[in-house]
Amino acid sequence: LDTDLLQQTQVRLDNKTKPLGSLGRLEEFARKVVTISGNPTPDLSKKVIFTFAGDHGVVEEGVSAFPKEVTPQMVLNILRGGAGVNVLARHAGAEVRIVDVGVDFDFEDCPGLIHKKVARGTRNLAKGPAMTRDEALAALAVGIELADQCKQDGIGLVGTGEMGIGNTTPSSAIIAAIGGFSPEQVTHRGTGINDQTLQIKIAAIRKGLDLNRPDPADPLDLLTKVGGLEIAAIAGLVLGCAANRIPVVVDGFISTAGALIASELHPQARDYLFAAHESVEVGHRFMLDRIGCRPILDLDLRLGEGTGGALAMHLIEAGVKILLEMATFEQAGVSEKQE
Amino acid sequence: LDTDLLQQTQVRLDNKTKPLGSLGRLEEFARKVVTISGNPTPDLSKKVIFTFAGDHGVVEEGVSAFPKEVTPQMVLNILRGGAGVNVLARHAGAEVRIVDVGVDFDFEDCPGLIHKKVARGTRNLAKGPAMTRDEALAALAVGIELADQCKQDGIGLVGTGEMGIGNTTPSSAIIAAIGGFSPEQVTHRGTGINDQTLQIKIAAIRKGLDLNRPDPADPLDLLTKVGGLEIAAIAGLVLGCAANRIPVVVDGFISTAGALIASELHPQARDYLFAAHESVEVGHRFMLDRIGCRPILDLDLRLGEGTGGALAMHLIEAGVKILLEMATFEQAGVSEKQE
Repeated sequence: LDTDLLQQTQVRLDNKTKPLGSLGRLEEFARKVVTISGNPTPDLSKKVIFTFAGDHGVVEEGVSAFPKEVTPQMVLNILRGGAGVNVLARHAGAEVRIVDVGVDFDFEDCPGLIHKKVARGTRNLAKGPAMTRDEALAALAVGIELADQCKQDGIGLVGTGEMGIGNTTPSSAIIAAIGGFSPEQVTHRGTGINDQTLQIKIAAIRKGLDLNRPDPADPLDLLTKVGGLEIAAIAGLVLGCAANRIPVVVDGFISTAGALIASELHPQARDYLFAAHESVEVGHRFMLDRIGCRPILDLDLRLGEGTGGALAMHLIEAGVKILLEMATFEQAGVSEKQE
Repeated sequence: LDTDLLQQTQVRLDNKTKPLGSLGRLEEFARKVVTISGNPTPDLSKKVIFTFAGDHGVVEEGVSAFPKEVTPQMVLNILRGGAGVNVLARHAGAEVRIVDVGVDFDFEDCPGLIHKKVARGTRNLAKGPAMTRDEALAALAVGIELADQCKQDGIGLVGTGEMGIGNTTPSSAIIAAIGGFSPEQVTHRGTGINDQTLQIKIAAIRKGLDLNRPDPADPLDLLTKVGGLEIAAIAGLVLGCAANRIPVVVDGFISTAGALIASELHPQARDYLFAAHESVEVGHRFMLDRIGCRPILDLDLRLGEGTGGALAMHLIEAGVKILLEMATFEQAGVSEKQE
């Protein structure tokens, strides 16, 4: 990233009618969007949140409180505009693009759905690899392709999101493998499972890691063996947005697992990321630290879909508007600091 | 506040297509706006931020990095729409109402300015009482009157803000007196003063407290002797909004000092408040704890004007939109938790 542009942007912020640095992280957001985009006057009028949907074979172990059919049901809910991500995206002035990258359901006559199904869900990671390497690569390619489309569409800010019953299980498996944690340390209650289901979930992750022995130094191996199709697509979206110089707001736990895979594959991808919020899920903080992202919000969220990203978009855009719209001391005829 | 209405609202939130409680503080915001307003379907389409401007005699001690004329200069900047609060209020869909409650300047031909001048600034609190009791009451009445006007205007959410060179000094004095702190413990750098000015500021607060001996159990005495006109107006706005059942978003350090005075005068006022953010200023956390408000944002802000409140409004409104716009399990045909 361009350090000259970074410094020029800070000078512009310092000339605004406010004490130096007094808008704190809003100024950080403005600097970051400028340097990512390479544009001194970034246009965030078009914003998109991608909600990638996929199913998980590991659900057959009994790791989730919700039945598997909720994945396609929620896809339809999102298409109709009734889900949390729809409400919050509308509020932020963002469009939701919902992508079937791996739902175990045949969607027909679903206007608006982006059909990119790689497989009808992953296989059960507790019994073998969740995906083939080709499937993982194909799902990564879905994200990259959609990022390229965003460049053509003039999208200024992209948010990640996901919908997939059971998808905190592969996310925790990825964290455990990369960080060298035991499954207990990084496995939490997801949609709100009870103690018994939590033990089943932990056991499934342990079986998956013991059986598949993913190589923590090989992010693609990790993604293939214990990941998910929507996690792969998010990783691809992050890589594609970085390549296209589009800033990406990473939502919560599962999205961060995807962003982590991306940043393990290409460490430079980290510079293009905003972490929307600190999730309630255990293990999220480890991923944020490893990516090097300080979360923007801390609102006890644990819904996913892209909801936290939608909220954070408003704050990132606020920083850019400060840069573009606030008067300078000279313009406003305001006296400067005299100390 | 109505506990039946609170419970009914949580039931409505629990029927939305999401795991129980998974939208965290957004759900808290929705419950709180409903119970404050007494309206199960609150209308936050009209939002107003009040920026109260006042000058401070204590500036002659040399407590600020900026010259006193910046107060009226910034009032004019806000009237022209160029200040930080204007940018962020526009972004949140809120109107800024700028009120001269005590600026040492004759504003003429200033369309949009709300003329409520009680005095041309306070007197120097390091040399005697900042105000007379009548002045403090008159400034409180300004805030109450403007809150009443909001009720008539159908305003759903009010934010507090202020502009007044020197106004972190009386705010720190109020905190020191109420909390029994030494001035060093609760005095910080305001607009960014250097070490020498910080020592002058601490000395001025010490002199003010030693000389005036405000009664910490008498909030009006405290406000009169070591407060400010805009701080009094904010206290009045909080009381007036509570009386009119309008939720109030309290901005940063100085605004919270006003809200603290209000909640010391009428402890029930606390139930009507949202704390926008955790300020960088030392002493802010004490006030928030005493009021019993958990801040919504933590973005290293220290500008004031109402800027943090404007940002928080978006999140509070997000919570209300979740309540009003999200589909229920039944509406969306989504299966519920089966554990």
